[in-house]
Amino acid sequence: MQVMENLVRTTVGMSTNIVWHECSIGKLERQNLLMQKGCVIWITGFSVSGKSTLASMLNRQLHCRGHVSYVLDGDNLRHGLNKDLSFKAEDRAENICRVGEVAKLFADAGVICTASLISPYRRDRDACRALVPDSMFIEVFMDVPLKVCEERDPKGLYKLARAGKIKGFTGIDDPYEPPMDCEIVIQLKDGKYQTPKAMAEQVVTYLEENGYLKA
Amino acid sequence: MQVMENLVRTTVGMSTNIVWHECSIGKLERQNLLMQKGCVIWITGFSVSGKSTLASMLNRQLHCRGHVSYVLDGDNLRHGLNKDLSFKAEDRAENICRVGEVAKLFADAGVICTASLISPYRRDRDACRALVPDSMFIEVFMDVPLKVCEERDPKGLYKLARAGKIKGFTGIDDPYEPPMDCEIVIQLKDGKYQTPKAMAEQVVTYLEENGYLKA
Repeated sequence: MQVMENLVRTTVGMSTNIVWHECSIGKLERQNLLMQKGCVIWITGFSVSGKSTLASMLNRQLHCRGHVSYVLDGDNLRHGLNKDLSFKAEDRAENICRVGEVAKLFADAGVICTASLISPYRRDRDACRALVPDSMFIEVFMDVPLKVCEERDPKGLYKLARAGKIKGFTGIDDPYEPPMDCEIVIQLKDGKYQTPKAMAEQVVTYLEENGYLKA
Repeated sequence: MQVMENLVRTTVGMSTNIVWHECSIGKLERQNLLMQKGCVIWITGFSVSGKSTLASMLNRQLHCRGHVSYVLDGDNLRHGLNKDLSFKAEDRAENICRVGEVAKLFADAGVICTASLISPYRRDRDACRALVPDSMFIEVFMDVPLKVCEERDPKGLYKLARAGKIKGFTGIDDPYEPPMDCEIVIQLKDGKYQTPKAMAEQVVTYLEENGYLKA
């Protein structure tokens, strides 16, 4: 918590060192003000699996219901906070780590914070999960097979990776480790992508059923 | 902005490459939801000048009025996002820079975000100011003379710095560059610290008079 309680040690009668908490504004007070529980919604999956689409629609649906939400996009943050980081292995890990730290601050502030990153390694995602109390981390796996993503390939990135023009591309020459026990799995329906609306509703329903959308 | 507009290029009649903006949730929508304008309140000044005290009380006063605010504390962030940074010159600059980037995200999310850091160099503060649109950065200078801070010295840090046991301590063997044209100056009253309440009220009045506390 960023807002600190001031501990004032004083003497009351014969008791010394009584700690008096001057109660400042903390997570619970923010929760009551916003009528929601701050949390991190971590969306992981292949490139072109629909992470940003889900994040954007989820953000819109939450906003329309009067909830305070925000999207941290891995690619966008590379223009700001993470502009000093390259795409080599340790920098990718640091990129994920910093997004996790920022998401933690947003969740602490009471915001429903959606982070959308390929985040292919289990250990990196688990490190982000470990930053916040257990119920504050909701991992969403975009369970779209590589084949489907690669067929779509709107920016031609898979094509470049197959041709060896992009190195370390997740799914082509770098592994993706799917979550083993995550909170939400978004799947294809009849072999096709679900609509953004349907995907977002699945997450909103989870939030509702698990008490995130009330104080 | 993190939430992106989807640009869809299409053909309408004879016109090609029409850009259609699928309007997503942006800064203005968040502003209307929260009934406030997100901004960065950057508190700068010597150690023991009252930065954290002001930040905490300001946060409380804003919360009690129903506003969504959050405090980023330079020291606290060193336990998380900035734990890889030392106190040497370039790392101190990077520390300030990252806090600036995170504050920018909070302000974009619609939150009134208070950052409290010594941030002794003008160029570092100006770099943070440059990250956000002009009216979104409010610099608050704790105009407390070094002598007053040093006399108080509750943690004995000035004493250690004078004894040469802490190097590069702002005001002792490292310069502090006061703002030349900042939005708010908090001064002593009759040579004494103002109450936290009085200091916070000065900032809240500024926010009110300049339209930050409404949509």
